Amino acid sequence: MSNSYKLVRRTSPKSSVVRVGDVVFGSGDFVSIGGPCAIESVAQIEAAARGVRAAGGVMLRGGAYKPRTSPYDFQGLGDEALPMIAEAGRAHGLPTVVEALGESNVPLIAAYVDMIQIGARNMQNVPLLRTVARTGLPILLKRGPAATLDELLLAAEYILLEGNERVVLCERGIRSFDKNTRNVCDIGGALRLQELSHLPVILDPSHAAGRRSLIEPLALAAAAAGLDGMLVEVHPHPESALSDCEQQVDLVDFQRIVRRVHAVRAARDLADDRANAVVV
Amino acid sequence: MSNSYKLVRRTSPKSSVVRVGDVVFGSGDFVSIGGPCAIESVAQIEAAARGVRAAGGVMLRGGAYKPRTSPYDFQGLGDEALPMIAEAGRAHGLPTVVEALGESNVPLIAAYVDMIQIGARNMQNVPLLRTVARTGLPILLKRGPAATLDELLLAAEYILLEGNERVVLCERGIRSFDKNTRNVCDIGGALRLQELSHLPVILDPSHAAGRRSLIEPLALAAAAAGLDGMLVEVHPHPESALSDCEQQVDLVDFQRIVRRVHAVRAARDLADDRANAVVV
Amino acid sequence: MSNSYKLVRRTSPKSSVVRVGDVVFGSGDFVSIGGPCAIESVAQIEAAARGVRAAGGVMLRGGAYKPRTSPYDFQGLGDEALPMIAEAGRAHGLPTVVEALGESNVPLIAAYVDMIQIGARNMQNVPLLRTVARTGLPILLKRGPAATLDELLLAAEYILLEGNERVVLCERGIRSFDKNTRNVCDIGGALRLQELSHLPVILDPSHAAGRRSLIEPLALAAAAAGLDGMLVEVHPHPESALSDCEQQVDLVDFQRIVRRVHAVRAARDLADDRANAVVV
Amino acid sequence: MSNSYKLVRRTSPKSSVVRVGDVVFGSGDFVSIGGPCAIESVAQIEAAARGVRAAGGVMLRGGAYKPRTSPYDFQGLGDEALPMIAEAGRAHGLPTVVEALGESNVPLIAAYVDMIQIGARNMQNVPLLRTVARTGLPILLKRGPAATLDELLLAAEYILLEGNERVVLCERGIRSFDKNTRNVCDIGGALRLQELSHLPVILDPSHAAGRRSLIEPLALAAAAAGLDGMLVEVHPHPESALSDCEQQVDLVDFQRIVRRVHAVRAARDLADDRANAVVV
Repeated sequence: MSNSYKLVRRTSPKSSVVRVGDVVFGSGDFVSIGGPCAIESVAQIEAAARGVRAAGGVMLRGGAYKPRTSPYDFQGLGDEALPMIAEAGRAHGLPTVVEALGESNVPLIAAYVDMIQIGARNMQNVPLLRTVARTGLPILLKRGPAATLDELLLAAEYILLEGNERVVLCERGIRSFDKNTRNVCDIGGALRLQELSHLPVILDPSHAAGRRSLIEPLALAAAAAGLDGMLVEVHPHPESALSDCEQQVDLVDFQRIVRRVHAVRAARDLADDRANAVVV
Repeated sequence: MSNSYKLVRRTSPKSSVVRVGDVVFGSGDFVSIGGPCAIESVAQIEAAARGVRAAGGVMLRGGAYKPRTSPYDFQGLGDEALPMIAEAGRAHGLPTVVEALGESNVPLIAAYVDMIQIGARNMQNVPLLRTVARTGLPILLKRGPAATLDELLLAAEYILLEGNERVVLCERGIRSFDKNTRNVCDIGGALRLQELSHLPVILDPSHAAGRRSLIEPLALAAAAAGLDGMLVEVHPHPESALSDCEQQVDLVDFQRIVRRVHAVRAARDLADDRANAVVV
Repeated sequence: MSNSYKLVRRTSPKSSVVRVGDVVFGSGDFVSIGGPCAIESVAQIEAAARGVRAAGGVMLRGGAYKPRTSPYDFQGLGDEALPMIAEAGRAHGLPTVVEALGESNVPLIAAYVDMIQIGARNMQNVPLLRTVARTGLPILLKRGPAATLDELLLAAEYILLEGNERVVLCERGIRSFDKNTRNVCDIGGALRLQELSHLPVILDPSHAAGRRSLIEPLALAAAAAGLDGMLVEVHPHPESALSDCEQQVDLVDFQRIVRRVHAVRAARDLADDRANAVVV
Repeated sequence: MSNSYKLVRRTSPKSSVVRVGDVVFGSGDFVSIGGPCAIESVAQIEAAARGVRAAGGVMLRGGAYKPRTSPYDFQGLGDEALPMIAEAGRAHGLPTVVEALGESNVPLIAAYVDMIQIGARNMQNVPLLRTVARTGLPILLKRGPAATLDELLLAAEYILLEGNERVVLCERGIRSFDKNTRNVCDIGGALRLQELSHLPVILDPSHAAGRRSLIEPLALAAAAAGLDGMLVEVHPHPESALSDCEQQVDLVDFQRIVRRVHAVRAARDLADDRANAVVV
């Protein structure tokens, strides 16, 4: 199995660079994406965009179609959310990323956003992978909660096989036997993906932790470990969010997180340079 | 279940401090422990101790009795390894930690070392937990590969109930469905342990990753995330190690790792101070 | 979470009965479904249908669109497979079940088959769940390899909410840390589903085991435990199958399996009656 | 790894037979062991023994030293429980099995019981494995909740290497992501153990399910699948048991279970004979 991914396999030390507007994944910089779990209103996404930008974030996320475990939970605003996030992103100079849930939504989403997300539940939804690939837009491909690294890379292979090489991988926590955290944040697996593939790899600490207090330290861990960025759920008022309120940070938190990840990342890179000159 | 740990439960923001000689766990500093998987000879543990000290490590680990999955693998030098590591530690000013495998070994181990390790396989070996607790020595308690956080904390509770409060917890990777890494390094779980308990929590990136290339980035992640230290397998000549040769780093690597973790840790703490003054 | 499935929840001892042609799920009888992993040709599906019928099987399965992990593996014959299985089923008096992979395939599939399968990878593909529900056809809903029972029941709830109550659940093995079997056959979980929900529950021992030698004993286990049926991959010539050749049984094997499951089931029910009269 | 078990590996179709008094494991018969989680009093173990015998059970289990997750839970009567179970077993013609928790208990246990159990938490406790092996008594070795089949077989290899070939393996459920059942009953894994090794393999449905209602159907599954026996927690008054009260059956239940497993097992074997004569 593991030798069947040909296009995503790393064959040289140089990683692929994926551009989304002015944002560059895979260049060595740490990319900070923020935004609410679900787009709830014009005012909410506008406030989120403003705050994400002020905090140093460079991309805006927001859910239009929410893949909820229960049919009785909030399912997102749907199509009408798309112009909201598009406008908020444009107003604040932030490229946007929105998840596609089904093949039929893809053309409309593609008309509004800068990057399409494939969520964890759809990582092996082959018709959807092929459909989003053909839009030519960059794709944020999340690892399924019980997907092996091989399976994730083969899912990416489906996209590259359609001629679309603009894929960013995202670790968002895997399922385990312990319920103290919503998922287990597999930073080691994300690092291994960087070794196996030339594609950029970012971390979603929000879903990985499922608990607000762990988002910041996991984001710092991702930056220090050398991952290519983070995707953080940010809400102007997390306590009143319509979904995932336990794992969204507010704008003040997000600003602190962004500053700290950059400080840690800079120290990591500087220490690397110095260390390379050291002999025991 | 989760409300049945009374002694290890965090009841105030202040963490417990565990001292092993001059080494202090839980003070906010990041403690670097290094040493070989198995003590193989006087020369090997002496070279390891010298290198660990030169690299900035502050404690020396080494296995005397190796808990091997297969009876046909190297089982360690046993009792005769104890004076070897004791002497190497003393010569280089490094407190020592060695794993106890069975109740009958404990008195001899206690006569030689500064801290006793309970390995992942023995996390719920109650007679052993009680026996090591009664030595009064500090205990390094590793999380079992499929132990929940509650189970780990209750194992620690057995030790504290014997009147020994000098316990340091250690995350060393948990078992998952993916075999690209030996274990999944559960940094989120380790952070959650710090929230649930007042005991210090360190990371063993060597067993968590099982792959040399991932040890350094995971150590950096641990330092940035705010854990209390790391336990790294360090061998003067990893390629000829009698056990775990895939996951031991050499002395040059260890020096670079220690320097970088301190740089990242300092940046994390500095950014924290500044960030606390920021208002959006 | 677990109290949010309202329509699938068991509220009385009486189970729901789901009819597919003459086949009845949930009546207490053990339903045997057989057929190849993938429909490969008219001759192959015709031979499979003939053999399944002769063996005592009552329904015919066959894959038209194969959800493969790798894009380089055989993806099925697609649309042209549908008339093949429809004709083979009709010729031998066997209702048919085929998996739908994407929303766009559903109308065509619905025109040919008697029951639509939702595969494990699509258990939480909400647009697909809603689309197949609206066909009014009975649905075979497979548990995802890392889905909790609650998640499976909530996926079924999506279907019932569309007004389609004809749902049969299928356990097909869950993902674990051990690779000696492809998946872990969670018979206990399947039994628990019968307690939590009024819907019929069958077992797919082929995917659960991933190993031919284990299919028969797991099928016997399912019958003895009281599950409502089995879905077995049967191929006239497993050694030359285009997919899953390791886990398909041949027609002779299938005949033996069907006879034995019925013998075991009868003994179970008879012993039950007698046992109810016993007093210690 | 998997080729390093030499002594436990199956090399011929003939399985090993392990005798404990008159009880024979591995002959093709299904062995029924019953008894309480913990020995609580002379009266309780006497009542249990009487009931197990009357129900058709052939061996008596009972815990003297309980390996509890929490130090605040009932830890068993300890040494004084040994003569209680020995006497109850002798009075009713039932060989006895008791778990050893630590090396120091082994000589006393060996003086009283007919078979020593190694519990799931101690599967890789090598000093304990060696100590019990040297008693020469038959050993019931339980699979750890997150142990691979290879690890279990290598644990057994430690025992055989000491010259003791009288080992019976026991599947008792593995840890998974779903908490609807206490563990996942891995019948497929147990069947695979029978293929890989010549040692007898039994099932403990009580710990596998952790829920009384699932014990009977899982026991039936084990008998139908071809495993070598079952270990069931039986208590005269489960509702007042001092431990595991959720998963112990009463004597009436146990009698029904034993009758049904024998009925199912006989049907399985009979159908096998007939089926072997069938040609499609």
